[in-house]
Amino acid sequence: MDLSQCSINTITVRSLGLSALIDQALARGVSAVAPWRDLLATLGIDEAAQLLRGSGLRISSLCRGGLFTAADEAGRRAAIDDNRRAIDEAHAIRADCLVLVCGPLVGKDLAGSRTMVRDGILEVLPHALAARVTLGIEPLHPMMVADRSVITTLGEANDLVDLIASPNVGVVVDAYHVWWDPDLDEQLRRASGRILGFHVSDWVVPIHGQLSSRGMMGDGCIDLPALARSVRSAGYAGPVEIEILSDHWWSQPPELVLDIALDRFATCV
Amino acid sequence: MDLSQCSINTITVRSLGLSALIDQALARGVSAVAPWRDLLATLGIDEAAQLLRGSGLRISSLCRGGLFTAADEAGRRAAIDDNRRAIDEAHAIRADCLVLVCGPLVGKDLAGSRTMVRDGILEVLPHALAARVTLGIEPLHPMMVADRSVITTLGEANDLVDLIASPNVGVVVDAYHVWWDPDLDEQLRRASGRILGFHVSDWVVPIHGQLSSRGMMGDGCIDLPALARSVRSAGYAGPVEIEILSDHWWSQPPELVLDIALDRFATCV
Repeated sequence: MDLSQCSINTITVRSLGLSALIDQALARGVSAVAPWRDLLATLGIDEAAQLLRGSGLRISSLCRGGLFTAADEAGRRAAIDDNRRAIDEAHAIRADCLVLVCGPLVGKDLAGSRTMVRDGILEVLPHALAARVTLGIEPLHPMMVADRSVITTLGEANDLVDLIASPNVGVVVDAYHVWWDPDLDEQLRRASGRILGFHVSDWVVPIHGQLSSRGMMGDGCIDLPALARSVRSAGYAGPVEIEILSDHWWSQPPELVLDIALDRFATCV
Repeated sequence: MDLSQCSINTITVRSLGLSALIDQALARGVSAVAPWRDLLATLGIDEAAQLLRGSGLRISSLCRGGLFTAADEAGRRAAIDDNRRAIDEAHAIRADCLVLVCGPLVGKDLAGSRTMVRDGILEVLPHALAARVTLGIEPLHPMMVADRSVITTLGEANDLVDLIASPNVGVVVDAYHVWWDPDLDEQLRRASGRILGFHVSDWVVPIHGQLSSRGMMGDGCIDLPALARSVRSAGYAGPVEIEILSDHWWSQPPELVLDIALDRFATCV
């Protein structure tokens, strides 16, 4: 099985620690991993960076920065500070990009919240440029606008990238978040050259909440092979991250989850 | 309280029968109601039509036609036949429009499913024209694409209306489905003159599924007053339907639900 383009996002098998995940990736011929920051914090960033850099694995992304929206100035300042730390961590582990989950709605002001996101990215951008870290704006599914991200479509993410106009800012495409979008093919073409990551899982029904209802590739209704072709046609040639937030799969033994996920990866991506 | 622009969708207080809902609407000064078809079927369409027409209430819509997508030709034919019956029922009760919930994804073919929707509307349109029934394409929230509707944005609905180009086809705007859309204001302007209905509820978190997590107006994070202004600026001057599909509110006494809903209507719409 060719897994040279495959990356495992740590959240998919979150009960594995970083060290065990690295071992699994190496043993299975997976070329990359993508850690969440909480996992780095558990070890301490220095030890985590040493482990990751010593593994020889590619780090397809660090998840996550963003969350720029806040009800007051103190909250916004705290988010900026945290994003600078996330940029430092992305630099320390040599991540291909820092994923930005841009932040939820504040109050009932969608336009204002979206402006906070733009301003937040602009404010941390000099730090990212100095650290040579690229920032990947990931649009999240519209059902997450109240909880996680006011950036809901690839079109919005592209608009932000256009506005910010920095070689260090691009987009991250996650199948679960964008697959439904009637404008997706056009926006993928528009994103050509600025796609910093591609994440896969599947949409299974019924969903039982916004966050952890994702399905295993092939179990749901996303045409992943077609989407993968479109993403590659837009010039993306990097790793494809398996990122499954799922109460069901979290309840299974992580080695079994990896068995299935990598098998599906071969047929679905 | 001025409820001259208020309509109660029967699903909001589904434990009331049609007759009791009509009594409640008349007693409370509500000007319109909007029945679901199952409620008409319970009484029989002739008796239901007699009740509704005898009440003097406006019928802001009949919910619902659509569901044009199907895995095979027999399924598609059955949907066409059912839509013709729905059009006849909308005519019988003098509904302002028949709401089209356009149908879920078939297999993994979004584009093909969307084409089925277009073809289905075109096929039933002559019957609607003959019955002088208008068809309201209602985009549903993108989290419902696998279960209910491949038409997910007002932009898509507008595209369909443009393509079909009939005075008997327009759009229905439901706050719950469209509020998140960064393109909403532009698409409302584009929908000017073709908005056939406006439905309200609210987005509360956490959602616990696609269908029945809707909130009472004012309990969630939708800026309903601003949205109502935008809809009215686009020329819509008809009734505003209270349509709350909610396990929580369904578990409450319907008279209490109406007390609260009408009170909120006055401040939120």
